[in-house]
Amino acid sequence: MGCVFCKILGKDIPSEKIFETDKVYAFLDNRPINRGHTLVIHKNHHTDIFDIPENDLKDLIVVAKKISTAALKALRADGINIGMNNKAAAGQAVMHAHLHVIPRFEKDGLKHWPGKNYAPDELKLDAEAIKKEL
Amino acid sequence: MGCVFCKILGKDIPSEKIFETDKVYAFLDNRPINRGHTLVIHKNHHTDIFDIPENDLKDLIVVAKKISTAALKALRADGINIGMNNKAAAGQAVMHAHLHVIPRFEKDGLKHWPGKNYAPDELKLDAEAIKKEL
Repeated sequence: MGCVFCKILGKDIPSEKIFETDKVYAFLDNRPINRGHTLVIHKNHHTDIFDIPENDLKDLIVVAKKISTAALKALRADGINIGMNNKAAAGQAVMHAHLHVIPRFEKDGLKHWPGKNYAPDELKLDAEAIKKEL
Repeated sequence: MGCVFCKILGKDIPSEKIFETDKVYAFLDNRPINRGHTLVIHKNHHTDIFDIPENDLKDLIVVAKKISTAALKALRADGINIGMNNKAAAGQAVMHAHLHVIPRFEKDGLKHWPGKNYAPDELKLDAEAIKKEL
């Protein structure tokens, strides 16, 4: 396996562990957006949100919740972003599905992506297109 | 209730529905970061990741997965970001817990927050602090 996260799970690459269950492993990102930035991964290798089974995805979000609460308190953070990047075009760098837990601080200077305007008919067309695939 | 999302659930405010179950409601954001940007909310009002019960959070992520797959196909997107902003400092604008499902396109120009360096002892200190609260 060339997967970096599988190597972390196998202890071939060291990591700063935060939390572990029989299914999930959580460790600090060593290139954090903010301090306490944690990655939550499943011990089963899946690529992204498209191929991870529902139950494994549930395992991840429950651990992300637990860590969010702990990190908020431990670091006296002012908020938490949860993120999951799926496919390279969405910023995914390691192709082993993972959740980011990112502590936020007042005045940390991180900007959110701006909202755009939507023509009303475009809105309906996109809704119809997505519903057709559900 | 002054909650905008509860008003959407009660049909007091219109929304472009994508998907609905007895527990979860998903609709298009009318100020989208990219087209197809969908918000996934629980019919039970909870503020954020800190107060939402595990089971309700699981309901949300399962629907987000379903919509991710459908939106990728329907809009011929190149990736999907999942996001959850918790507290105002993390960019949360409506205080009713919600997941963002954001289709991404090659060259859509959206930049990700950069990683910073971490001193090795800082890394360990933050890990210890978070673990203490778990």
